[in-house]
Amino acid sequence: MKRILVTGAGGFVGRQVTPLLAAAGFEVHAVGSSTHAERGAVMWHRADLLDPDQRKQLLAASRPDVLLHLAWYAKPPDYWRSAENLRWLTASLELVQLFVAQGGERIVGAGSCAEYDWRHGYCTEEITPLRPASLYGAAKAACGGVIGGYAGELQVSAAWARLFFLYGPFDSPVRLVPSLVRSLSAGQPARCTAGSHVRDFLHVGDAASALVALLQSKVSGPVNIASGSPMRVADLARHVAATIGRPDLLTIEPGPAENAFVCANVARLRNEVGWEPPADAAARLDETIQWWQSSEGAPRRG
Amino acid sequence: MKRILVTGAGGFVGRQVTPLLAAAGFEVHAVGSSTHAERGAVMWHRADLLDPDQRKQLLAASRPDVLLHLAWYAKPPDYWRSAENLRWLTASLELVQLFVAQGGERIVGAGSCAEYDWRHGYCTEEITPLRPASLYGAAKAACGGVIGGYAGELQVSAAWARLFFLYGPFDSPVRLVPSLVRSLSAGQPARCTAGSHVRDFLHVGDAASALVALLQSKVSGPVNIASGSPMRVADLARHVAATIGRPDLLTIEPGPAENAFVCANVARLRNEVGWEPPADAAARLDETIQWWQSSEGAPRRG
Repeated sequence: MKRILVTGAGGFVGRQVTPLLAAAGFEVHAVGSSTHAERGAVMWHRADLLDPDQRKQLLAASRPDVLLHLAWYAKPPDYWRSAENLRWLTASLELVQLFVAQGGERIVGAGSCAEYDWRHGYCTEEITPLRPASLYGAAKAACGGVIGGYAGELQVSAAWARLFFLYGPFDSPVRLVPSLVRSLSAGQPARCTAGSHVRDFLHVGDAASALVALLQSKVSGPVNIASGSPMRVADLARHVAATIGRPDLLTIEPGPAENAFVCANVARLRNEVGWEPPADAAARLDETIQWWQSSEGAPRRG
Repeated sequence: MKRILVTGAGGFVGRQVTPLLAAAGFEVHAVGSSTHAERGAVMWHRADLLDPDQRKQLLAASRPDVLLHLAWYAKPPDYWRSAENLRWLTASLELVQLFVAQGGERIVGAGSCAEYDWRHGYCTEEITPLRPASLYGAAKAACGGVIGGYAGELQVSAAWARLFFLYGPFDSPVRLVPSLVRSLSAGQPARCTAGSHVRDFLHVGDAASALVALLQSKVSGPVNIASGSPMRVADLARHVAATIGRPDLLTIEPGPAENAFVCANVARLRNEVGWEPPADAAARLDETIQWWQSSEGAPRRG
């Protein structure tokens, strides 16, 4: 049984992926910055990954064969511009070196579609140039590039999961889907300010299942984690409004001309990793709307 | 008078640039890993930039307005693949944060043509994609990208000098020009193994003068530091052999098909920085040949 260390395990993606890893037969060591109840087969560690001593103790305590590194500074909207990105880049590189030094075999790190040059629109891992427009994107691109080069030199296996536009439970309530659901459910007007934009949306639970498939594969280098099904933001917003039964409260604006199309080529994910995006994206969106309307997703999270 | 801190000041580029900065009116604080004699107006500090405490002490002692960050792991050929690149990336990012925190105003860092996707051949800063083929190139690209994003957020001025193929005194003796000079001067046969390749060569003294111009400008972002004059490697080798008077000892092989052309677009350097490459590159090459034949460049350096 492979031992896996999941960082950011209490976060938006991490909380979805840890139970799947346990179900897939990994011995799961999960680390977060706050305490979590033991859940099933997951062993929780509490550590601040920005602290060198705590990093070392964590690796010594968990001795993982596999590292799924999801932790990063993720508070919206600050994370786009915060100097915390430099601290997380540095901590990530040091974590990876410690992981390799203690015998680690495979790394999967969380990258972002924000690494790409969005002027190209259709993003293919080894073709589309990187040109991050934000400090977050620059730090993620830096992290992925250096981990890739380092792993190549040390003959450690490493993949870099470029996550596209995720939605789902426990997302930040300021994001598109929860903000629409919460406004419309409360009978408040909602504005969709980039209606003409086309994006590649994926449910976070599907992203988690794609990450498990990527971890279990031997694929190295960058891999887009996305649906491969472009959707107009206006269509998504209209679906949410129709489901809630308040299309009258929705105003749609086309949004700025730049970055109108940002979608993923998922050929690597399908053909090399062997993961197929879900056929029924609407059902996943409906589940998410229900979650945000339920007590779990209620406004206390704002 | 602006205070400048030059890291790597005892290195190949640093030793050329420090006297020029002093001559240009900067109060020059120079730091290297070994002790150097005081030279003119340059104040030398000794510090290991990989040590957090020494970094802090250095910034506190020098309190620079301007940072010229040249220091990196540079031992050929190890530097292409060494994990030292991760340590220097981390140290560089922490140095830059300390510099900004104590009131620093402008940063110029040393990047590399190794950051670019060489399949494009002709490298233009904001157009040619980055796709480093080495860990060194990946770490330099990461460093430049993150410093650029960070400086943008903090409204600090930062430029990233992508140095192309430099030659000159105190280069590593294993590199093309010194290895040719030393073999041919000793009456030994010399092989030029990439004769058909075209590169952009620049004398390190000219690179130093371009860096001073870049420091004094307000230009931000990546800037190629190069001649803008492509040269066939075979022509350079033949010039060296002819100057030494031993063309009979030179064997030229065409070299691999890939990476046949790697040259810089120097429009930014010329038009925005206002620096003009030297008209007579052959004279600079001849000076370098003489230096490697002199006692200073003699084989003790091997």
